Amino acid sequence: MSSIAKSVILIDYVEEGLVGPEHFNITESTVPELTASGGIRVELAGISPDPFLRGRIKKPVGSASTLETIRPGFPMVGFVVGKVTAVIDNSNWAVGDIFGAYLPFVTVQNLGPEDLKARLLWKLTGKLTEDRLNLGLGIYGMPGSTAYGGLIDVLRPIKGKGEVIFISAASGAVGSLVGMIAKNVYGCKVIGSCGGPEKCALITSKFGFDHAIDYKKINNKDELKAALKDVAPDGIDMYFENVGGMHFEAAYESLRVKGRIAVCGGISGYNDAVTPPVSVNIMSMIYSFNRIEGFISWPWLSGAQGNFLEDMHGFVQAGHVLPNETVFRGIESFGEAFQSLFTGKNTGKVVVMF
Amino acid sequence: MSSIAKSVILIDYVEEGLVGPEHFNITESTVPELTASGGIRVELAGISPDPFLRGRIKKPVGSASTLETIRPGFPMVGFVVGKVTAVIDNSNWAVGDIFGAYLPFVTVQNLGPEDLKARLLWKLTGKLTEDRLNLGLGIYGMPGSTAYGGLIDVLRPIKGKGEVIFISAASGAVGSLVGMIAKNVYGCKVIGSCGGPEKCALITSKFGFDHAIDYKKINNKDELKAALKDVAPDGIDMYFENVGGMHFEAAYESLRVKGRIAVCGGISGYNDAVTPPVSVNIMSMIYSFNRIEGFISWPWLSGAQGNFLEDMHGFVQAGHVLPNETVFRGIESFGEAFQSLFTGKNTGKVVVMF
Repeated sequence: MSSIAKSVILIDYVEEGLVGPEHFNITESTVPELTASGGIRVELAGISPDPFLRGRIKKPVGSASTLETIRPGFPMVGFVVGKVTAVIDNSNWAVGDIFGAYLPFVTVQNLGPEDLKARLLWKLTGKLTEDRLNLGLGIYGMPGSTAYGGLIDVLRPIKGKGEVIFISAASGAVGSLVGMIAKNVYGCKVIGSCGGPEKCALITSKFGFDHAIDYKKINNKDELKAALKDVAPDGIDMYFENVGGMHFEAAYESLRVKGRIAVCGGISGYNDAVTPPVSVNIMSMIYSFNRIEGFISWPWLSGAQGNFLEDMHGFVQAGHVLPNETVFRGIESFGEAFQSLFTGKNTGKVVVMF
Repeated sequence: MSSIAKSVILIDYVEEGLVGPEHFNITESTVPELTASGGIRVELAGISPDPFLRGRIKKPVGSASTLETIRPGFPMVGFVVGKVTAVIDNSNWAVGDIFGAYLPFVTVQNLGPEDLKARLLWKLTGKLTEDRLNLGLGIYGMPGSTAYGGLIDVLRPIKGKGEVIFISAASGAVGSLVGMIAKNVYGCKVIGSCGGPEKCALITSKFGFDHAIDYKKINNKDELKAALKDVAPDGIDMYFENVGGMHFEAAYESLRVKGRIAVCGGISGYNDAVTPPVSVNIMSMIYSFNRIEGFISWPWLSGAQGNFLEDMHGFVQAGHVLPNETVFRGIESFGEAFQSLFTGKNTGKVVVMF
């Protein structure tokens, strides 16, 4: 049986500035019947506007990224959550299975054996009920595995030692999870930076952060260092970098001995054509044994490293992490939802559910 | 029996510029008889002019360093090699023992039980013969443990994979050792940067480096990146940082996936009052999982981490590492020897032997 699918099409690359609804078309197309032996048909329940996609809709310039290229006139590609609606001769998947994946933003699609080999899909059946599919884009998806891998395997907090962690974009999808795991699982002292009094109140009252710094009241690196010193007079052990710019520099200069920085994003520069570099005195990292390390979620999301899905499910069931979401409804809202990531109007994980 | 000791006295702090003989006095003093139970008397055979001492003779500004402060009017403190000449009730040391240590530059001194507890001394008896005591300041001392720890535990080359390592100050005390261990023990492809055709010839013909880059022919970061690309078209896996400045930036921008940088020095900025920062695009380290890590030799030299002395002794005996030294004679030559570190007139480890 053929179906009608809707797609989010990128109209053209956008080198700099805010991206919004005007940069995408929603188109309809017919999906042929599933015929491939070993294939599955999937129906998406939601798609994920994520900050990293901003870099993907600039013209590619030979980066180290191995993610597939996004091209004007073709569907956006990113993280999705969905259900399996048909299966032909496949022992891994059953009709009704719930999954997260990195796929084109096309509401109905057939995945042949080659697609299933090349594409990242992870099974969420048994972990997510129908009414919580949105969590497949957040806690049980890329942001969750980013928080998990970055905290546990890159920053490596020492359990029960009371280490101090600083987190930027702390009310966001990744930052709020990092803070809750650091606090509730590792016993860290947790400091978050976010924009405005509402978000600051949210991370301290709801997510249990020890301190919030409102970066909108901060004018430069030195003021941010001073704000950090107020709440962490002896410096910080870890910094989870989502923002870049003055946040990175202030955190770097506030590290104490054996301090470490995990870098997985730098949203402050994403709308620039060329991301501004940060300025680092590398001499200061020698005697202090400091470490800076970049990473993306892929090893943990794919299961190549760690035990993300089981561990995170345990954290959810124990109440260590709480959902934190802004939900947009309908595929047509993708452009607006994506824009909200950069205007600071969202809190937590922004999702587009159908 | 009392003795006459000679000391290297720092006249005053020097905030910037080249340091030389005019900044030190050589004084004489009487050393009292050894009386402390549990104490030893030592006689130094040599002292070590090392680049890191340049930072120690600037006025201290509350750094993360835990090394003891060097003060005007008092002896310099640094790495030495020596022999035990008297012992009272001490089961760890015997007359005739050879050792390396971090001690004041005073040719004869008594070390009481408290000194022996607080000071770093490592026994070299059985590893070094009388005619090779100078190696206690190089291969068997701080530079050796810097090369060992930085390569093996910070950069962590994968044995036999043929990873590409770039080393700055490659003809120097640390750099030449890093290159030889990387080549002969780990099977790396080794690229070194040094100043002038003689040093370039030395590292390729004598120390077995695959390629040498003469940085004196290089004007800026982009030229250095191009020179690296000529010999490592697919980028580098590791960079051992001894220099700072354009070397760091070019190496950082040449890293491939899972690339890492070990930072233990930045001699290009040591004579500046304030070390110039480097400029880093931290976004480029995310998808490539790059890592930058600072360290000093202390954990390996003290035996807290790894198995430095035994492993390095094995490398020497197997012919994997060769000595590489410039020897100055007499304590009075310390200032001249120290200056040579910054004028590029030395090759390998500069030592002052008595």
